Amino acid sequence: MPEALERVSGIIRETSASENPIISQGLSGLFNGQGKLLRPGLLLIAGGFGKTQAKHYTLAACLEMLHMATLIHDDVIDESPTRRGQPAVHTQYGNRNAVLMGDYLLSRCFLLAAEYTSADNAVGLARVIATICGMEIEQNSDRFRTNISLRRYLRKIMGKSAMLFSLACYIGASEAKVSRALTARLRRIGYNIGMAFQIIDDILDYAGDPAAVRKPLGNDLKEGLITLPLICAFRGETPAQASRKEGAPSQDGAAALRGLFSADHFSVGDSGAIISLVQNSGGLEAARSYAEKYTARAIREIAALPAGGPRDMLDRLTRLLLVREA
Amino acid sequence: MPEALERVSGIIRETSASENPIISQGLSGLFNGQGKLLRPGLLLIAGGFGKTQAKHYTLAACLEMLHMATLIHDDVIDESPTRRGQPAVHTQYGNRNAVLMGDYLLSRCFLLAAEYTSADNAVGLARVIATICGMEIEQNSDRFRTNISLRRYLRKIMGKSAMLFSLACYIGASEAKVSRALTARLRRIGYNIGMAFQIIDDILDYAGDPAAVRKPLGNDLKEGLITLPLICAFRGETPAQASRKEGAPSQDGAAALRGLFSADHFSVGDSGAIISLVQNSGGLEAARSYAEKYTARAIREIAALPAGGPRDMLDRLTRLLLVREA
Repeated sequence: MPEALERVSGIIRETSASENPIISQGLSGLFNGQGKLLRPGLLLIAGGFGKTQAKHYTLAACLEMLHMATLIHDDVIDESPTRRGQPAVHTQYGNRNAVLMGDYLLSRCFLLAAEYTSADNAVGLARVIATICGMEIEQNSDRFRTNISLRRYLRKIMGKSAMLFSLACYIGASEAKVSRALTARLRRIGYNIGMAFQIIDDILDYAGDPAAVRKPLGNDLKEGLITLPLICAFRGETPAQASRKEGAPSQDGAAALRGLFSADHFSVGDSGAIISLVQNSGGLEAARSYAEKYTARAIREIAALPAGGPRDMLDRLTRLLLVREA
Repeated sequence: MPEALERVSGIIRETSASENPIISQGLSGLFNGQGKLLRPGLLLIAGGFGKTQAKHYTLAACLEMLHMATLIHDDVIDESPTRRGQPAVHTQYGNRNAVLMGDYLLSRCFLLAAEYTSADNAVGLARVIATICGMEIEQNSDRFRTNISLRRYLRKIMGKSAMLFSLACYIGASEAKVSRALTARLRRIGYNIGMAFQIIDDILDYAGDPAAVRKPLGNDLKEGLITLPLICAFRGETPAQASRKEGAPSQDGAAALRGLFSADHFSVGDSGAIISLVQNSGGLEAARSYAEKYTARAIREIAALPAGGPRDMLDRLTRLLLVREA
């Protein structure tokens, strides 16, 4: 896999190369920032259940470029000064160039999609991007609102994360002429991995080691984002309740949170107190049990895949993502 | 044509509709802002030389959505408070939502391209968008620099405007099964119309009626953009010289400009003086003679098209664009 991902990185470097020095410097800095290349990895593994072709590598690069484009724009709008421990694109090149570089990457990504995938998959990709943007806009209108339901949260992380994981598996499988039933299964696996991935991401914002995660703790909360650990703490969910899908507010932490959240909106000033309350109220463990639930679903479907290298890789990756610390 | 464009507007409204109230309100406000629908118009006219199909209207909508996406992002990065006399998207919904709404429109545009056009045309579209972004980034690095050559200016307006006009004609013709030679001619016509269009746009920034243009005079200059009227004035070009493609600095205005431009960079504070000098030094007339040259090229090629309604429409449109005041 490392060699395969190296090949993907090479394509990304090639495709994002430009005569324009700002574009080529900005993007090469970005792609040297050692992303996890998760989405490309999933696409290639899914392709491994059929006949992987040269275009799989190109399409894998395409998904990573799309992901990077959304990160560049996210960092501009969140005013995050760093990304993966490096200065963010907008910090180095200004907001103007960052917005444009994101657009540039998006268009290069569509270029690859139009050239290398079926019209159906290109349509799927465009749809996922539209959904990601829609969910991010929805997320903006929810900022600092206290009454976010679990359902709304799950819908949001599906739109902004899980769908892209799911699409990665789908494109990989369908372009490798994998059977329809197997392709559908891989798509569901991608979805469940993506849901677990985003939940762990949201947990790390409360409990990660800032040096490992390479961003400060409570970053999302300061942006006004209410994520699963807080939702669980607020509902007074314990891990057991979470996995039973119930949960009546019961703990002291929940009561204290309700105090902080007595108004419709919470304030940035409360974020320190909120983080402590979430850490001490079982919210993290309850959130983790949701991640475990999605991971277990993925593992169950993975077990039903044809035995072999790709299945083992997918199984290992899924388990690793659950216990990742960054 | 008004009915055809009404049909295009309907498709835009439909495609940009979203469950998300911010997206649907923001975009419907935008598309009610009475854009000229020039790019869709060109696509439909070019299609008229062959067999226009339902998908022509969809692709016309696609180009307008792409154009709107770039305008939304432009307004964010230029911090322009208004667009077409209405509050800009970012003024109404904030920078976050504006960046995301631009991304949303871009992805909807790719969705239409992937669904309705050939892979070749979808690739062409993605390439043009990448070029537009590249040129805008180049333009940013040139801001407030005094030594912009005529050649660099022409290259820039080709990338950021004329290529999209050219693509509009190309897509319209090629999807209508027009012959290769005729399609190539229409593509060149689009290019020349686009070059003239952008030059007139740049002239209107120095000489337009702010009420008609719906933006303040000198807007580009305050952003640090050096456009053709200033380049001509600086070179001391007279209209006659411009059309002979020569021009030695000779006039008083040019000398005064060189005084202001003695350093590598000019400053926002000089923009009032620069506008007056350009207005009084023949720079506007010289710039206009370039627009006339591109228009004349377009008209010459239009004369060689098969006679009929589409040719007459194209001829009339090209002449109107040259004398437009907004």
